[in-house]
Amino acid sequence: MIKDRVNQLLQERQRGFSLPGAFYVDDDMFEADLEAVFATDWLFAGSVAEIRGPGDYITMEIGRDSIVILRDREGEVRAFFNTCRHRGSRLCLHETGRANRIVCPYHQWVYELDGSLINARQMPEGFDRASHGLHPVHVEVICGLIYVCLAETPPSLEKFRKTVTPYIAPHQPDRTKVAFFSTIIEEANWKLVIDNNRECYHCAGNHPALLVTLVEFALPDDPAANATFKGLMDRSTARWDGLGLPHAPADGGTEFRCIRLPFNDDCLSFTMDGKPACNKLLADFTEPDLGSVRMFRVPNNWNHFLSDHILHFRVLPLSANRTAVKTTWLVHEDAVEGVDYDLKRLTEVWTETNDEDRILAENNHKGVRSRAYQPGPLAPSEFMLNNFADWYCTKMADWAGGPGGRRIAAE
Amino acid sequence: MIKDRVNQLLQERQRGFSLPGAFYVDDDMFEADLEAVFATDWLFAGSVAEIRGPGDYITMEIGRDSIVILRDREGEVRAFFNTCRHRGSRLCLHETGRANRIVCPYHQWVYELDGSLINARQMPEGFDRASHGLHPVHVEVICGLIYVCLAETPPSLEKFRKTVTPYIAPHQPDRTKVAFFSTIIEEANWKLVIDNNRECYHCAGNHPALLVTLVEFALPDDPAANATFKGLMDRSTARWDGLGLPHAPADGGTEFRCIRLPFNDDCLSFTMDGKPACNKLLADFTEPDLGSVRMFRVPNNWNHFLSDHILHFRVLPLSANRTAVKTTWLVHEDAVEGVDYDLKRLTEVWTETNDEDRILAENNHKGVRSRAYQPGPLAPSEFMLNNFADWYCTKMADWAGGPGGRRIAAE
Amino acid sequence: MIKDRVNQLLQERQRGFSLPGAFYVDDDMFEADLEAVFATDWLFAGSVAEIRGPGDYITMEIGRDSIVILRDREGEVRAFFNTCRHRGSRLCLHETGRANRIVCPYHQWVYELDGSLINARQMPEGFDRASHGLHPVHVEVICGLIYVCLAETPPSLEKFRKTVTPYIAPHQPDRTKVAFFSTIIEEANWKLVIDNNRECYHCAGNHPALLVTLVEFALPDDPAANATFKGLMDRSTARWDGLGLPHAPADGGTEFRCIRLPFNDDCLSFTMDGKPACNKLLADFTEPDLGSVRMFRVPNNWNHFLSDHILHFRVLPLSANRTAVKTTWLVHEDAVEGVDYDLKRLTEVWTETNDEDRILAENNHKGVRSRAYQPGPLAPSEFMLNNFADWYCTKMADWAGGPGGRRIAAE
Repeated sequence: MIKDRVNQLLQERQRGFSLPGAFYVDDDMFEADLEAVFATDWLFAGSVAEIRGPGDYITMEIGRDSIVILRDREGEVRAFFNTCRHRGSRLCLHETGRANRIVCPYHQWVYELDGSLINARQMPEGFDRASHGLHPVHVEVICGLIYVCLAETPPSLEKFRKTVTPYIAPHQPDRTKVAFFSTIIEEANWKLVIDNNRECYHCAGNHPALLVTLVEFALPDDPAANATFKGLMDRSTARWDGLGLPHAPADGGTEFRCIRLPFNDDCLSFTMDGKPACNKLLADFTEPDLGSVRMFRVPNNWNHFLSDHILHFRVLPLSANRTAVKTTWLVHEDAVEGVDYDLKRLTEVWTETNDEDRILAENNHKGVRSRAYQPGPLAPSEFMLNNFADWYCTKMADWAGGPGGRRIAAE
Repeated sequence: MIKDRVNQLLQERQRGFSLPGAFYVDDDMFEADLEAVFATDWLFAGSVAEIRGPGDYITMEIGRDSIVILRDREGEVRAFFNTCRHRGSRLCLHETGRANRIVCPYHQWVYELDGSLINARQMPEGFDRASHGLHPVHVEVICGLIYVCLAETPPSLEKFRKTVTPYIAPHQPDRTKVAFFSTIIEEANWKLVIDNNRECYHCAGNHPALLVTLVEFALPDDPAANATFKGLMDRSTARWDGLGLPHAPADGGTEFRCIRLPFNDDCLSFTMDGKPACNKLLADFTEPDLGSVRMFRVPNNWNHFLSDHILHFRVLPLSANRTAVKTTWLVHEDAVEGVDYDLKRLTEVWTETNDEDRILAENNHKGVRSRAYQPGPLAPSEFMLNNFADWYCTKMADWAGGPGGRRIAAE
Repeated sequence: MIKDRVNQLLQERQRGFSLPGAFYVDDDMFEADLEAVFATDWLFAGSVAEIRGPGDYITMEIGRDSIVILRDREGEVRAFFNTCRHRGSRLCLHETGRANRIVCPYHQWVYELDGSLINARQMPEGFDRASHGLHPVHVEVICGLIYVCLAETPPSLEKFRKTVTPYIAPHQPDRTKVAFFSTIIEEANWKLVIDNNRECYHCAGNHPALLVTLVEFALPDDPAANATFKGLMDRSTARWDGLGLPHAPADGGTEFRCIRLPFNDDCLSFTMDGKPACNKLLADFTEPDLGSVRMFRVPNNWNHFLSDHILHFRVLPLSANRTAVKTTWLVHEDAVEGVDYDLKRLTEVWTETNDEDRILAENNHKGVRSRAYQPGPLAPSEFMLNNFADWYCTKMADWAGGPGGRRIAAE
């Protein structure tokens, strides 16, 4: 019945317009999202910099599920459902922590960092520990970015890996450390949070701090771009070519996007004055003028890779109208707070921007709930919302399996 | 299916008793209310005194809808769904404000005060602005009271207008200003809030401040009324007849009620001592002893028109168990706070009374949720609850279209 | 349809494992619990010590129902639905109080303490007060413990009464007074709260204060028990036999459990040092070394009867993921605070323990919500969870009436 409803809404959807309102606000469509999207696709979970040593872990909530992502004794990144195999208690209770082994707080069942159950006191002779290990979750690490997949058989990530690695690897994300981490809750559907990120049409009216440095154009050949931008683009790409750093838009289809774009003239980083936020540059960079690699991947992740720091954003759906947005600021692993960087200066632009975006997404959600809402026409500068909607509708169609699905998927 | 349930409950309803409990507490009946009542009928939205100048606006939440009511450049009152035609953001974010034009906070689409879209930056050549104006909402203004209707084809308000105008017009509501405005949230169904207002059976036990001045009888010929009231009534009506002010109960059927009733002997206004709250009387009144015109209209509005101030109450359903009650205190447009009136003195009686009523409605809601609740018998002094229930059941029957509906509607 | 779902889940249930997750977390299963369990069975409501005089009352919330339990003028304990027969207002608004008569706060209908309506002002001639008394709730008092049943025809309590009386009566609960009362809200399903209480497998890792005095073994012949416990048990039972105090496990089937067990060596009461909490012992005890009678009864009650105080715990379901736990500490009616007992000393062990259990139950609930949860194997020391699950599944099967029900009920 819920699949019939998905198929009906997919029939109503028109390309070039925002989605039918039910996709954004209805509880049953949120359940469909959890099954069709979040239980099947790769999800961004964090950076290896968040779990540098054995036993370091982070947890991630997706709807009603909690996942624990950790580094095992051999240095491998692993992920498990954060649910004990005994009576189901949560195991790791914090957003981040370190554990020699995973010990259930309820009855102290003990799991190795590879998920195997190694002790379950008071269980009788003959209890089969081997069949009571933690339920594993698939993990892939791409240049230090951790992706997890809840599905039994995950889709391939190889095109993504192969395509984005040349852009990201030079910034050496695996030689970074966490400078700051923030969590905000937005009273809005996760797709409205993503929509908000997928265009800069709203920037001029809402993001004064961000626009000190960020260029509003998403593509080198943006038809709306002016001569100033074209000149800046030409100078920048010549310099990056000289350094062997890729910059052209990658072909990610509707699944991902990767591109290097310059900051505004004379700007080098996301700061209030455009000067670097961290004097110790990433990798072994000596050139601070690297713009930023903007990398987005469905359904829940965007990033900026700069010369002096890296920003990861992960979007976690909590309910139809609640979404967590977690932001990580990474700097060179040898950078020293107070010496190489000032924390307020490093974080203030995106802290403000996140909060501005939260208000926009929340008001968007409120308005979409109204009977007066109808899908509205997207501007050319919102082309990435169309990409996202195409991808989303294809996922939903695959899941729901109806004729509406086939129609969209075939487009 | 929801209509079947409405029809079943209508069959169970007995006149002279409170309603079957599901009408008050069930989520699906709240959805039915939004469709059958709030999407079809005229709703009280406020006073013209709240939007005196061009661009002044107020917003009103009805369930999941938000409506913006404003005064346009020609001085006309207009109303629109508060949802942008682009991607659906809320437009006006405050309860009250002033706007030269309506500019969407998200992407700055600009709407004229007549709702037409006059600018949508970045939209391509050929974009049809004319078909993307704000969705209008019907508006009627009756002696300064603003009513809106979300339906495409609203019912007639002419009988109401014609009937109540002689009672209200002499108080000249369009020559008033807002002295105070309050919003309270009651954890109770909107119909329990209305029920609470429709009888004074509960006054003696709960409203000490109100009963300093308010008479508990609802009709001149109330069979329960004593000789004191009859004498007061006779003296009052003689005086009002001399001033040409109508007072007899109007024939509003189940839709509205309008009557002028005296205050207790020697009392002139809703104050703790019965003396006027504002020394500058409304209109050009010189006689302060005008009692009050009590005017109620389904589904969400009651009012008091006194010699020295006007009170509007609007009831806004938020969910099955949450209701906003907004109260406006109006005084003569030339009255000066601190000179002609003291704000605490003006507002304290109804601020206390509202809070007392909130507690009563909330405890009523809690009790109705119990399996032990069954519709109980109404007292003669609760005759207006019966009128309200008759009206409500007819609306629900019209909407649900079942035989239960026809039965009630035919009574 | 909800019954079909119950039957399906009952088919999935395996003895020796925790329950299928939906029973713990789904809203519709909570509704089924209210009907199948809480509307049919006897529920612990409190102690007679809480309502010592005529008109003393306590209220109890069960799902959406509120019950008032009071002592009438003749000293009898009575219970009623806490809902007025007029328009359904809650009547008694506090957790505990005293009322000469029950007067509805809304319109002052007056009920005698026997539930009869004795005054309903403004109701017309001929109004039949006799048919508008409060809806009664069945009450049984067993050694001062009050049980209520919302069903029209309650099941028999005689086996329970007959069996537990010899254990409890010597402690003379009807000669006690309330020393302290606490309410905590746990964000967990009520069955997870009960599960938590039904085993001490979790004690070692979580209850440092409790384990100062509590023995972890649930039965005299616990196969896991060590020589120390066996010696303690032998010495204790010899002493209790000498005093004529029963101690052997009673045969309560899956419905109740009653047993007297010793505290740890040299420990007499639930205190941080094991010494008595109240110097005035209960009844006319002179021997403080009485261990505690541990008495549990489905669905919502466990207790400890010591030489110096009594503890009652009542579990009240509020929604699928919210449960109130109320704890009462009773001491001898003549004990004087500050002289015979210190309140902090009396209450600190179980105040801490309750809070520790709250956290365990809440994390259990969170983990069970995950798609990764599957019923896990119970340890031998969790045998009482199996008893509880057997009882619960039989109740659900009786209510749902499907083949799954019959299968379980026949086991």
